[in-house]
Amino acid sequence: MVAARAGASVAIRYPLTMLETQDKHGLGLPYGRIYNFSAGPGALPVEVLEEAKDDLLNYKGTGMSVMEMSHRGKTYDDIHMTALANLRKLLGAPDDWGVLMLQGGASLQNAMVPMNLKMEGKRPNYIDTGHWGHLSLGDAKLMTDVHVAYSSEGTGFDRAPSDDEPQFTPDVSYVYYTSNETVGGVDYLRDATFNTDALVVCDASSNILSRKFDLTKYDVIFAGAQKTQGPAGVTTVILSPRALEVAAQQKLPLMLSWTKAHKAHSIHNTPPCFAIYMCGLYYQWLLKNGGVDWIAPINERKAAKVYEVIDEGFYKGHAVKENRSRMNITFKCPTEELDKKFADEAEANGFSTLAGHRSVGGIRVSMYNAFPESGADAIAQFMREFARKNG
Amino acid sequence: MVAARAGASVAIRYPLTMLETQDKHGLGLPYGRIYNFSAGPGALPVEVLEEAKDDLLNYKGTGMSVMEMSHRGKTYDDIHMTALANLRKLLGAPDDWGVLMLQGGASLQNAMVPMNLKMEGKRPNYIDTGHWGHLSLGDAKLMTDVHVAYSSEGTGFDRAPSDDEPQFTPDVSYVYYTSNETVGGVDYLRDATFNTDALVVCDASSNILSRKFDLTKYDVIFAGAQKTQGPAGVTTVILSPRALEVAAQQKLPLMLSWTKAHKAHSIHNTPPCFAIYMCGLYYQWLLKNGGVDWIAPINERKAAKVYEVIDEGFYKGHAVKENRSRMNITFKCPTEELDKKFADEAEANGFSTLAGHRSVGGIRVSMYNAFPESGADAIAQFMREFARKNG
Repeated sequence: MVAARAGASVAIRYPLTMLETQDKHGLGLPYGRIYNFSAGPGALPVEVLEEAKDDLLNYKGTGMSVMEMSHRGKTYDDIHMTALANLRKLLGAPDDWGVLMLQGGASLQNAMVPMNLKMEGKRPNYIDTGHWGHLSLGDAKLMTDVHVAYSSEGTGFDRAPSDDEPQFTPDVSYVYYTSNETVGGVDYLRDATFNTDALVVCDASSNILSRKFDLTKYDVIFAGAQKTQGPAGVTTVILSPRALEVAAQQKLPLMLSWTKAHKAHSIHNTPPCFAIYMCGLYYQWLLKNGGVDWIAPINERKAAKVYEVIDEGFYKGHAVKENRSRMNITFKCPTEELDKKFADEAEANGFSTLAGHRSVGGIRVSMYNAFPESGADAIAQFMREFARKNG
Repeated sequence: MVAARAGASVAIRYPLTMLETQDKHGLGLPYGRIYNFSAGPGALPVEVLEEAKDDLLNYKGTGMSVMEMSHRGKTYDDIHMTALANLRKLLGAPDDWGVLMLQGGASLQNAMVPMNLKMEGKRPNYIDTGHWGHLSLGDAKLMTDVHVAYSSEGTGFDRAPSDDEPQFTPDVSYVYYTSNETVGGVDYLRDATFNTDALVVCDASSNILSRKFDLTKYDVIFAGAQKTQGPAGVTTVILSPRALEVAAQQKLPLMLSWTKAHKAHSIHNTPPCFAIYMCGLYYQWLLKNGGVDWIAPINERKAAKVYEVIDEGFYKGHAVKENRSRMNITFKCPTEELDKKFADEAEANGFSTLAGHRSVGGIRVSMYNAFPESGADAIAQFMREFARKNG
C-alpha cells in the first residue's frame, strides 16, 4: 500500500516570457506544455528534451545529428556504452549480469523469452494478472506447452497473488510475471519470492527504475523504455548469469538471440541510436538527482495524493488496496456519463490522456518517473472539485 | 552503369551569421554541419531536422513531444497513418499491398522472412552477393533447408548475377536477393526478372526510394529506414497480395507476424513513434520535391561524379562496372597507407566516415537520398587533388 507522506512538490521556475506566450491553461509549465497522463509512451524530463533539441542538427560539434552518425563510430559508441553502463549502475546490476538494449518492445520479448529459455522436458509457468501477462501467455502458448500457475481473471484482474498462491508444476522451467499491470493498475509492490528454484522472468515495463528492484529475486527483467526510461523503440533486458547460461545453449537467428546481443553489447545490428541516446540522457537525469533512491519516494508521494482523494468516497478504485499501482491509478466515477465528463473537463484544463483503457473503462491516472509532482497535486485538486460539483 | 549527366548542384543559401560562427571547414553548410559519408545511418535532410527541432518540446501546440504521446491518441495516429500513406504513394503500391513499419531492423526480417513464407514441402533459394545476403542466408539456414542459387563469393562479392545465372530448385518457395550490397558497393541497377514463378523477396535497405522499383517484379521488399528514409529503429516491409496470403497461413507470435502487423496498421504494439515521425517528415520532403522521379537522377549524378574520378586511373574500384552501386562507391588507393592517409585527410577537411568496411578495406563513399549534391562535387574535387599529390 502506498502511504501518504509529508513532502511538498518542488516547483521549477522558468522565465516569465516563456510562460506568458504559450501557457494556455495557466499550469505554470514551460514551452506551453501540459500535464500528460498517458499510460505510455509517457512524459520525459524537460531538461532531457532541451538537451536533445540543442544538439539535434549538430551533436556536440560533430557536424551531424545522433540520428545520422555511423553506429560503428567512436561518437555513437560512447553514447551507447555510457547508456548501458548508467543503466547497469541505476539497477545495481553486477558485472556478470547482462544488460541489453534491444528493439521490438516488450512484446518481442514475449516471443524471445520462450525461445531463449527453452529447456528440454520442462515447461514455463505463467502468472496472469492482467492485459500484459495475458498477451505474453498467448504468445508463449503458440510456441510451447505452458502451465498457468495463477490467474486473477476471475476477479477482473484486480489483484496480484501473494508469494504462496501460485501453483507451480514440478517440471517448471521458468516463472513469468508482470510486476505492474498498466491496464488494471495492479502492482506487486514488492520483489516477489516464489516457492521455486526455477528461473524468474519479470515484465517490468511500467515500473523498472521507479523503485528499487532486488535483483537476487530475478533472472530476467525486461521493459519497454517508453514509460519510465525514455521514448518508444528500445527494450531493456536484464539477464542473470543463470539466464545467460540457458540462453547460450540455444541456436537462434541474430535478432532473436539474447546471447548474440549480449556478446556485441547490443550493437549486433544497427541499434535504434536516437532512442538509446534519449534513454542515456534520461539515465543521466536520474543519476544526477540521486537515482532510484531519489525517484522512488517521489513516485510514492505522487500516487498517494491521488489515492487519498479516491479514499474520500466519490471515486471507486479498480485494484484491491494491497496491489494499488504507484504508476497507473485506475478508478471510476459513479456513472459512465461522469467518467466521460471527467475526461473531457480534464482535457480542457490541460490534463491529457486520462480515459481508462478500453477493456476497463473509467479513468486512468498514469504518472511515471518524469511526470512532475506538481501534476499530482493539480489532478488531486481537480478530482476533489469535480467530486464536489457532481457528488 | 551510371552515366555522367549534365546538371549543376543546387546550393541552398543560409544566413551568413549562421555559417560564420560554426563552419569550421568552410564547407558552406548550415549549423556547422559536415559532409557525412556514413554507410548507415546516413544523412537526413536539414529541413527535416529543423522541423523536428522546432517541435521537440511541444508538437504543434499539443503540449508534449511526439516521443511522449500515447500511440493510441488522435495526434499520433495522424502522424502514423500519414507516414504509411505517403510511403505507399512514394512506392506506387496498390491498395491491396501491405505497407508495414516495424522494429528490429532489416536483420529481424532475416528471421521473419522464412517464418512468414514457410511452405510445406518447399524451400527458399538465396542469391548471395555480399555481406547482407550472406548474413540473411546464415539466419535462414538455422531455421530451414536452404538452396544457394548463386554466389559471387568466389570473385570477392564484386558483382550481381544476370537474370538467368541463378540456378533455382524445382521446389523453390521464394527467391531472396539484396538489391544493393553496401559493403562491396554492388547494385543490380535494375528490377531483376528471374526465371521462376516463386515469390521474390528483396532486401532493399540501401536503395529503396533512391530509384523507382517496379513492384510487379517483387513480392516482399524490406528495408531498414536508416539509409534512404529516416533514422534507425524502423524497418519498412512491402508485401504483395500473394505474400500476404502465404503469411496469413502461419501461426506466429505478435511481433513476428506480418499478418498481425498488417491488420493493425503497424500499431500492433507501441511503435517506435519518433522514428516513424521522422520517416514521415522524410517522405514529405521527398514528395514535396517530386518523389522518387526527382531524387533518382540526382542520385545518379552524385555517383557519376565520383565514378568519373575513379575512371581517371589512380583509384581502383571494387565492383565490376555493370554493378557499380549508386549509393556506396567502394575503391582503393594504390596502397593501404594511402587509403589511411586519404581517410585521415578527408576527415580533417570535414568529409566524415569514408573508411571502407573492415571486411573490404579501402574507401567507401556512401551518398544516400539526403546527402547533398554539393558533397559529391566536393569529394570528387578532393579525390582529384589527392591523386595529383600522391600519384
